[in-house]
Amino acid sequence: MKVAKFGGSSVASAEQFRKVAHIVQSDVERRIVVVSAPGKRYKTDTKMTDLLIQIGEAVVRGEAYEHVLEAVIERYADIARGLELSASKLMEQIKADLRQKIENYRHDRDRLMDALKASGEDNNAKLMALYLQSIGLNAHYVSPLDAGIFVTDEPGNAQILQESYKKLQQLKHRSGVLVIPGFFGYSLTGHIVTFPRGGSDITGSIVAAGVGADVYENFTDVDSIYCVNPSIVENPRQLKEITYREMRELSYSGFSVFHDEALEPVYKARIPVCVKNTNNPEAPGTWIVAHRDHRDEPVAGIASDTGFCSINVSKYLMNREIGFGRKLLQILEDEGISYEHTPSGIDNMSVILRANQLEGGKEQRIIDRIQTELQVDDIQIEYGLALIMVVGEGMERAVGVAAKATAAFAKANINIEMINQGSSEVSMMFGVKENVVDQAVRALYEAYFHSKQPLS
Amino acid sequence: MKVAKFGGSSVASAEQFRKVAHIVQSDVERRIVVVSAPGKRYKTDTKMTDLLIQIGEAVVRGEAYEHVLEAVIERYADIARGLELSASKLMEQIKADLRQKIENYRHDRDRLMDALKASGEDNNAKLMALYLQSIGLNAHYVSPLDAGIFVTDEPGNAQILQESYKKLQQLKHRSGVLVIPGFFGYSLTGHIVTFPRGGSDITGSIVAAGVGADVYENFTDVDSIYCVNPSIVENPRQLKEITYREMRELSYSGFSVFHDEALEPVYKARIPVCVKNTNNPEAPGTWIVAHRDHRDEPVAGIASDTGFCSINVSKYLMNREIGFGRKLLQILEDEGISYEHTPSGIDNMSVILRANQLEGGKEQRIIDRIQTELQVDDIQIEYGLALIMVVGEGMERAVGVAAKATAAFAKANINIEMINQGSSEVSMMFGVKENVVDQAVRALYEAYFHSKQPLS
Repeated sequence: MKVAKFGGSSVASAEQFRKVAHIVQSDVERRIVVVSAPGKRYKTDTKMTDLLIQIGEAVVRGEAYEHVLEAVIERYADIARGLELSASKLMEQIKADLRQKIENYRHDRDRLMDALKASGEDNNAKLMALYLQSIGLNAHYVSPLDAGIFVTDEPGNAQILQESYKKLQQLKHRSGVLVIPGFFGYSLTGHIVTFPRGGSDITGSIVAAGVGADVYENFTDVDSIYCVNPSIVENPRQLKEITYREMRELSYSGFSVFHDEALEPVYKARIPVCVKNTNNPEAPGTWIVAHRDHRDEPVAGIASDTGFCSINVSKYLMNREIGFGRKLLQILEDEGISYEHTPSGIDNMSVILRANQLEGGKEQRIIDRIQTELQVDDIQIEYGLALIMVVGEGMERAVGVAAKATAAFAKANINIEMINQGSSEVSMMFGVKENVVDQAVRALYEAYFHSKQPLS
Repeated sequence: MKVAKFGGSSVASAEQFRKVAHIVQSDVERRIVVVSAPGKRYKTDTKMTDLLIQIGEAVVRGEAYEHVLEAVIERYADIARGLELSASKLMEQIKADLRQKIENYRHDRDRLMDALKASGEDNNAKLMALYLQSIGLNAHYVSPLDAGIFVTDEPGNAQILQESYKKLQQLKHRSGVLVIPGFFGYSLTGHIVTFPRGGSDITGSIVAAGVGADVYENFTDVDSIYCVNPSIVENPRQLKEITYREMRELSYSGFSVFHDEALEPVYKARIPVCVKNTNNPEAPGTWIVAHRDHRDEPVAGIASDTGFCSINVSKYLMNREIGFGRKLLQILEDEGISYEHTPSGIDNMSVILRANQLEGGKEQRIIDRIQTELQVDDIQIEYGLALIMVVGEGMERAVGVAAKATAAFAKANINIEMINQGSSEVSMMFGVKENVVDQAVRALYEAYFHSKQPLS
């Protein structure tokens, strides 16, 4: 069986609903459908989730929200009308349910937000089930509570509980097509709790792992995953196959197609993922698998991300001082700061981290503590760093991979601020100034992929 | 004024003593001479220091040592005879002094070793002073106690005390040529304590800093410092100039010409160092200075060292776990282990360290603790790693430096296990398997220096 998850743009309108129905009908193996909330229909459109957040914020501030609530209902009603569905009963239900949630959680901002946001997916799943039934499918809405998606009780940051998987397994034995809303689960105390970013992907992945699906299909609005961000390189190469490890490194460092946290359940259960296009389901898509033949393709992709900074400390004979690095990391930990990398020289150590973590006075506190407690000769914070990750299973044993990258930088006259290679077997990291990062990515793309034809 | 330090081979025989005297006579600015113990005269010769260690070990084991003590005296007597010196009184003094030391410290191994080893330099300085006087120089032996070299009281690992510098300053006002033994100082409780490896270099550097010398001359047995180890590359390029930072990185990672710890006092006092050849004092030698023009020569040298290992741990979503790296380093610190570098990926972290630190059961204890306390998915220790350091002031802004190195590796078909660049402004580090390290160094030498003529 297949678990098919449809992203926001795939379920944004009646037209998109029809495409989804067509996809579901065309393969009897597609027995579980996970849906997002309606996304944008056009560039300046507002996502359902954002409307719901507006309601929540108005409630918290004690402001009027009825007009936004009407807009929410109208959005669903518009889809229903376009599908020629009699959905007035569902619309009444949705309205009543939203009012109930507002009433229940009026004084608990986090719970209110989670409940309202989750309703976007929840009601869309109900509408999808109704539509699939209307065209003759034996479809059923299944709530996450009924399915068995139990999560930790931290609003906005739910983590799946292991006991869920046993319950989810039973979904296999249900008949027909099951429509499950993405993005949220239930805590053991009965509260709705949403997953972190990429939430619907996470639901799909959990359900696929739970039922032991043959494949987890992730329907989105692109034909495939590209080897590099298409907003940086025009019409870049499409990936036919990529491994879990490659996907994870790429997602972490800037690829937004498939969120890294969503990969864990299918990775552990070794369920292949296929990323496909709702608007062009005939395209083969990109397969995310455990192994690929990487002899001809040592590099799978190039990702980049900005907004990093480097804390650079130097101290003569630092290298002789047992505990120096540990103490420096302890100071960051005390401030709740996570870091990416720690390149070091004999008398120097740098810590690369996301710059936004140093806001709110943390920067000065950290500088002061490092100066006072570690007696360094010098400390400087360098902002405006970008990290570029070259990712590929063939990296570890491909002698020329590093040479190709550094030659590309040299040719483009781009200075490398940092290189980190050696721990991960599938990636190599470069640090450059933010203002040259796109240029650097293009130079790397040129070096690794230029001479090759895009795969059909 | 100049402080001139002469290494073991420069003071190993009567012939070498004559060369030293000639060097001292040829420049009235050479007012302070620091001497090592007699080194090897030929390849299979035994160094004075090793004879003294033999005595110490025999004493500790309660074995006979008289014959070794005679060999020690004979070594000095041989030099004296060759210089046609009447030194029988000094020989009697040396013998009595050694017996006294053995008596005093018979039951304290560390003190005994320090006192005996230090006597090698001490008595050689006395002999040198006697010889310089005999040829008409106004020369005086000055003991480190008299000079004011006060150190911490840790046998074999003395660190200079800051109060020394005030006392040392007064040496400037003494007349004639002062001959000071290298390698040791006195603790505030009056004990002889030796410096760590490179001890005579340290004494010379401290004295040069103390008197504010115009230059610290370090006489050895090579015409200059080479840009790479001459036992790996035949007849390599000589360095005319190198900065303190470059020298320190090179010394740390395998260059034995000038010990890194010896650099600190002159580095802080900004006193230029000139490394010269006792056997060819006309050669210009290598200058170690604060700044050099590195536009044409971004790279100064290539050093390598073997005997490293890498502890590689991986854990899914490691990157989300604040404190992971700190805890890992804490475990190593608890075992008193120092590390070199910590390259990291998203789900991986490696710690590079000297492999001999894992002996004596530490390896298993560390593996157990990392597994138990950090719940890693995998931990492996990879032995047989070598580190190669490419060092140069022009590194930071020279776009092509990394490209040249990685291209050289690729051309030589050598796999790079690790690259660490970015924290130090003057070095770039590569990890390779030990069995290809010499080949890798030769490939790098070829890439950076081949087309250039050796400097005269």
